[in-house]
Amino acid sequence: MKSFTKAILTTSALLLVYGSAARADALRDTAMDYFQPVPATTPAQVDNPVTPEKVELGKALFFDPRVSASGVFSCNSCHNLATGGDDNLETSIGHGWQKGPRNSPTALNAVFNGAQFWDGRAEDLKAQAKGPVQAGVEMANTPENVTAMLKSMPQYVEWFDASFPDSDDTITFDNFAKAIEAFEATLITPAPFDAFLNGDDAALNEEERAGLELFMDKGCASCHAGVNVGGQDYYPFGLIEKPGADILPAGDKGRFAVTETVDDEYVFRAAPLRNVALTAPYFHSGKVWDLKTAVEIMAESQLGEEITDEEATKIVAFLNSLTGEMPEVVYPVLPAETAETPRPSGDVLVEDGNQQKLED
Amino acid sequence: MKSFTKAILTTSALLLVYGSAARADALRDTAMDYFQPVPATTPAQVDNPVTPEKVELGKALFFDPRVSASGVFSCNSCHNLATGGDDNLETSIGHGWQKGPRNSPTALNAVFNGAQFWDGRAEDLKAQAKGPVQAGVEMANTPENVTAMLKSMPQYVEWFDASFPDSDDTITFDNFAKAIEAFEATLITPAPFDAFLNGDDAALNEEERAGLELFMDKGCASCHAGVNVGGQDYYPFGLIEKPGADILPAGDKGRFAVTETVDDEYVFRAAPLRNVALTAPYFHSGKVWDLKTAVEIMAESQLGEEITDEEATKIVAFLNSLTGEMPEVVYPVLPAETAETPRPSGDVLVEDGNQQKLED
Repeated sequence: MKSFTKAILTTSALLLVYGSAARADALRDTAMDYFQPVPATTPAQVDNPVTPEKVELGKALFFDPRVSASGVFSCNSCHNLATGGDDNLETSIGHGWQKGPRNSPTALNAVFNGAQFWDGRAEDLKAQAKGPVQAGVEMANTPENVTAMLKSMPQYVEWFDASFPDSDDTITFDNFAKAIEAFEATLITPAPFDAFLNGDDAALNEEERAGLELFMDKGCASCHAGVNVGGQDYYPFGLIEKPGADILPAGDKGRFAVTETVDDEYVFRAAPLRNVALTAPYFHSGKVWDLKTAVEIMAESQLGEEITDEEATKIVAFLNSLTGEMPEVVYPVLPAETAETPRPSGDVLVEDGNQQKLED
Repeated sequence: MKSFTKAILTTSALLLVYGSAARADALRDTAMDYFQPVPATTPAQVDNPVTPEKVELGKALFFDPRVSASGVFSCNSCHNLATGGDDNLETSIGHGWQKGPRNSPTALNAVFNGAQFWDGRAEDLKAQAKGPVQAGVEMANTPENVTAMLKSMPQYVEWFDASFPDSDDTITFDNFAKAIEAFEATLITPAPFDAFLNGDDAALNEEERAGLELFMDKGCASCHAGVNVGGQDYYPFGLIEKPGADILPAGDKGRFAVTETVDDEYVFRAAPLRNVALTAPYFHSGKVWDLKTAVEIMAESQLGEEITDEEATKIVAFLNSLTGEMPEVVYPVLPAETAETPRPSGDVLVEDGNQQKLED
């Protein structure tokens, strides 16, 4: 009798396991139509071979505050690798304590985005890298000043020479951007979701799988797809129903500023969702701090769906499974300045074109 | 004949070697009266056992910008471990783009200073760590807000519990400061000068040794002594001859503000000189960018000596031998915020006691 019961229990358990495995396989098959796991190797970059020397140089540049006019901000200030690759601010604070126009996107896995910035105005990471350096509200610097800074330090000259062995003039603003791109291409964070896509059923628990299923069934995955679970294409914020001006301020028309096409008013790149649990506050305006609230707003504005609290909770559980493992980054030791290094200046350019000196 | 010549040459060479070795020994003996090499182990801290858990926690806190009210500045912003443990600015730029009153000292080897800050107002690193957090021109935060921030993140709670196993209430502002002290106690940079003191004649070349000899003979080592080649005692800036107000501004009376003793007017802690080649600009005012100029100013103002250009060059060569090897610091991955985490605010407290909102 005992062994008979045991046999039945074993069979049920086996059936459960097989049933569960079959369900996981079906879910994975559907998911693979929308998403791809991150690769285990660094993706190749257009016209920019990724070498170990260039990655190391790019890391130094990424962390070097002397890239900004004031000497205060590095790329890492707003794309902080310690806090999900962003700065956890509504919008970044930059040169002269000015507030930037849009929420800082994560640098993690940015290599998988179709284009860079919320409006996709930079075609790749090397084009993006040149933007904040020159933006008056961010680093407020010039390409000339950046290259003069780099050329003033023999250690940087050596590193650029090793990174661009085929160039005559190695320290250029283009090469500066290429080195940063090479480093950023290594910022890939494999997550439990990748393990699941790669065949590990146990990588996602039941709630996370239910969330993944909802994420596809409800239509979220129509825009947030691909390797980066978003970051590929452009959609109007408020496709079905415009959110309030507190979340979608009237002044920022998104991609319209790039294409000057009426259809692109309030159009933004669908946010890439890897590590989204680490990158509050949300949306280009940075006005929403809670991930579940952000999910509910998206459902309503983009899909015209009121989702239940339980559904939102499950979707958030799935989104948490996109939190990946950071690559180990050894903090760089940067080259020392020389007498030729341009001095930092916190002075702010005011409207009449004059400099307003930073007070002593 | 040939072998006779060879024998003479060999003897001369040996004499030279022995002579050189004897001279190096004599120089080392004199130097050991003034200086000590850095230890190979982390120095014990008063009432604060340095454990691996506490060092890791301290590192996280050191790099966490959420310690500042704005979410922009971490300890590492002004004490940047990538650039000699300081920020290479005249004086730091802080909350609301305000300029701090004094040049940011290096965090490297600060554990060997007799007391902290230019006026020695903090007796140790844990006392120091509480200062910038609360300074209106630096992080502009409060102890209450810092502990609320830390308590809001389960990962920080876990780390504090592991770091302070004997405390009931582990997340306190005191323990926050103790963890930072533990991390900073590990920031020791062994230099060629240490190798020389430890018996390696070849660690310093001839010019560097000549510089060391001058550094002691001229009297520099009377104030800049000990493990940290300074950082121990207090001396009037302009002991023999006051430098101009451009270098010694009248408004900053140094240690007078701490002791309120007339004798302490314009008295400052002798700067610790390890890694001095990396920490321009110099002096509490940060007004001098060139190390050789700084040496010449010191000779004149503190010793009443006009040193020759050659002497200054040799002393700078010696000072360069104080540039040490940075400990490897893996950039931390910080805990993620929760709904309870206080929101960052870049608002600035203005004179009437009201907050001036950071403009959108």
